[in-house]
Amino acid sequence: MITSTTGPQPADFADVRATNLAVVLRFVREHAPCSRADIAASTGLNKATVSSLVADLIDRRLVRETGLTENRVGRPATMLVLDGSPYAAIGVEINVDYVSAVATGLAGERLLTWRRSFAGGASVSQDVAALAAVIRRVVNRMAKDERQILGLAVAVPGLVDVQGVVRLAPNLGWRDADVSGDLAKALRDPGFAVQVDNDANLAALAEHRFGSHAGAADLVYLTGEIGVGAGVILDGRLRRGALGYSGELGHVQLDPDGPACRCGRRGCLESVAGIAAVLRREPSPAEIQVEIEEVVRSARAGEAATLKILDSVGRGLGRGVAVIANLLNPEVVILGGYYVPLAPWLLPAVRDEVAGRVIAPGGCEVVASTLGHDAAALGGAAWVLDSVDSGRLPGGMSRFS
Amino acid sequence: MITSTTGPQPADFADVRATNLAVVLRFVREHAPCSRADIAASTGLNKATVSSLVADLIDRRLVRETGLTENRVGRPATMLVLDGSPYAAIGVEINVDYVSAVATGLAGERLLTWRRSFAGGASVSQDVAALAAVIRRVVNRMAKDERQILGLAVAVPGLVDVQGVVRLAPNLGWRDADVSGDLAKALRDPGFAVQVDNDANLAALAEHRFGSHAGAADLVYLTGEIGVGAGVILDGRLRRGALGYSGELGHVQLDPDGPACRCGRRGCLESVAGIAAVLRREPSPAEIQVEIEEVVRSARAGEAATLKILDSVGRGLGRGVAVIANLLNPEVVILGGYYVPLAPWLLPAVRDEVAGRVIAPGGCEVVASTLGHDAAALGGAAWVLDSVDSGRLPGGMSRFS
Repeated sequence: MITSTTGPQPADFADVRATNLAVVLRFVREHAPCSRADIAASTGLNKATVSSLVADLIDRRLVRETGLTENRVGRPATMLVLDGSPYAAIGVEINVDYVSAVATGLAGERLLTWRRSFAGGASVSQDVAALAAVIRRVVNRMAKDERQILGLAVAVPGLVDVQGVVRLAPNLGWRDADVSGDLAKALRDPGFAVQVDNDANLAALAEHRFGSHAGAADLVYLTGEIGVGAGVILDGRLRRGALGYSGELGHVQLDPDGPACRCGRRGCLESVAGIAAVLRREPSPAEIQVEIEEVVRSARAGEAATLKILDSVGRGLGRGVAVIANLLNPEVVILGGYYVPLAPWLLPAVRDEVAGRVIAPGGCEVVASTLGHDAAALGGAAWVLDSVDSGRLPGGMSRFS
Repeated sequence: MITSTTGPQPADFADVRATNLAVVLRFVREHAPCSRADIAASTGLNKATVSSLVADLIDRRLVRETGLTENRVGRPATMLVLDGSPYAAIGVEINVDYVSAVATGLAGERLLTWRRSFAGGASVSQDVAALAAVIRRVVNRMAKDERQILGLAVAVPGLVDVQGVVRLAPNLGWRDADVSGDLAKALRDPGFAVQVDNDANLAALAEHRFGSHAGAADLVYLTGEIGVGAGVILDGRLRRGALGYSGELGHVQLDPDGPACRCGRRGCLESVAGIAAVLRREPSPAEIQVEIEEVVRSARAGEAATLKILDSVGRGLGRGVAVIANLLNPEVVILGGYYVPLAPWLLPAVRDEVAGRVIAPGGCEVVASTLGHDAAALGGAAWVLDSVDSGRLPGGMSRFS
């Protein structure tokens, strides 16, 4: 069955058993090797319930028993670890000039990393067909390794609503495109969930699971692509807002008398601190990579004009980060995309502005991402693993439900 | 035992039974009258577990059986409703010129509303002693009605960390004050939790439980006092940030060439759209009420200078609301405090700016609070009820834990 959902949600009244299964699974993920008694002691679930939940997870091949036993007084306890050997989570990112794909196992181990150049933006249906072709190859590769797909999430640079409809992806020319539905059709009942989300949102999930500040309850990821957008994680979860459009920081106005922005206003964050501000002109997507490398060379060589531009961009970016820090008080703001190679020159100015503007005692840490350019694709896989951890378990019906 | 905590948290590994008790309690709150079978059907908990949980909640006098039975085929089911008759939740707000107190029952029904004028800010210890005196009177009144206190939360206009320490409350002159600890000492082991939080945070909780948009998963409350601060609710919960300092919107800079702000910068939201901008001078706390009434009279009379000021303040406020809306995509931003009487003149300009600046399809609703000036105190009671709903149940040890 193909479903498109709004992502991991805290269980409320529905299916407390699924929540409890997920609690046990997360406990094993974080504390393996551990015994059934450890789980009961830490979760407050009684031992019979834990045994039944563990049996279910073993049935689903999410958890397995090891030969290990716990070294303690009394009867030796069989130890449990994460299994998941028959599963894979897939993340895909589409942008105007490339498609990336990442597959990981249940424990997050990388199984596959692909990046294909791609001439996107001709039409939604052509783009979806190209995406589906890449996905089919990934799925086939996983099938050869006898891995079942836990789910798939696609990162799109644009406004994606909570139903997964892409409302607007300007660089791809998409508008009101039901990409998850179209992809599911193109994949012909693939037997796993197909989710579409904003690239900044998924990159934030990747940071939360795999990045330098993995596990930070409150972090914000800032994309540094042609557009600037934020992925907001608070209290350990992505916060999409009411309709899914959180993180639209690019056109927050920092200075009514600032430089003209392509949105028609002046002094938006993108106009002050986007890639166009670095390059001093509207870049063509195909050339950004090369042009950024040129800026890095020039900065390394200590060219004054370049250093001045990067200081100015860093100060603008710092003002944007200060808005995030004052409103949300995250532990860290992580700069991604093209901000990463520029970070040695941007970060001092960013941090200086943040230190001067943030009200919160303790301020706000700002770092460059360590995940590289496939953060959003990796985030797709992270989304899938998050939904498993939240109780959307593979392996069919629970024996008890 | 006196405890000071960081507020309602989603249960993770700890005490799944308490979580399940809370799930049943929330179900009864939202669906009463309902039967045990209804609860089992909707929560996925089995019937024996539900019966045990309901027995526990009846023991604690949080739920009771009614004489009603459900009209359906088969054995008639006894219906359950919220009890809570022996309980009260207390919220208190302290500001530089008044103390407010509110008490509610478990279902949120108002039991008591007090407002006392108060010359605060002499010293933390004097202020705490005055607060404790008010609280003791509220507690005694509840004791006369044979109600046990479920908990107490105090709203403070300032930076409060996640441990409940007031880092800075400029108008009260407090700095690094452990007000919850001091209060607990002054109250001499009161037998309930004493929590301190930021006024905007608690007012947001009041809106979420009792306001015109009660139940909205994503809402932001903006205080309109001498300072401007935000309380941020996303996915149904208050988001305090890493250290508790979220919502510090007052000194987000909207215009580097704007009017001077008391923080030393120019063009901060407070300088553009705070009460000082309405009154065109730094107000003395004791006179704000009278002066705002004068502005309202003048606006009603259609005086051009006043209308121009309110339009300008509304536009600045709209720019601040647009920052919130773009970054967080809430369903609604609610204006509180002195913005409420001024709303007829502010809202058209606010909404116009928001409509032009918000990227999200669907925009963002902006309304004036309907809760009046004790929103923050009421929010203290809401915080207590939220923590009961999250599993911090009164009535001693569970029979099963």
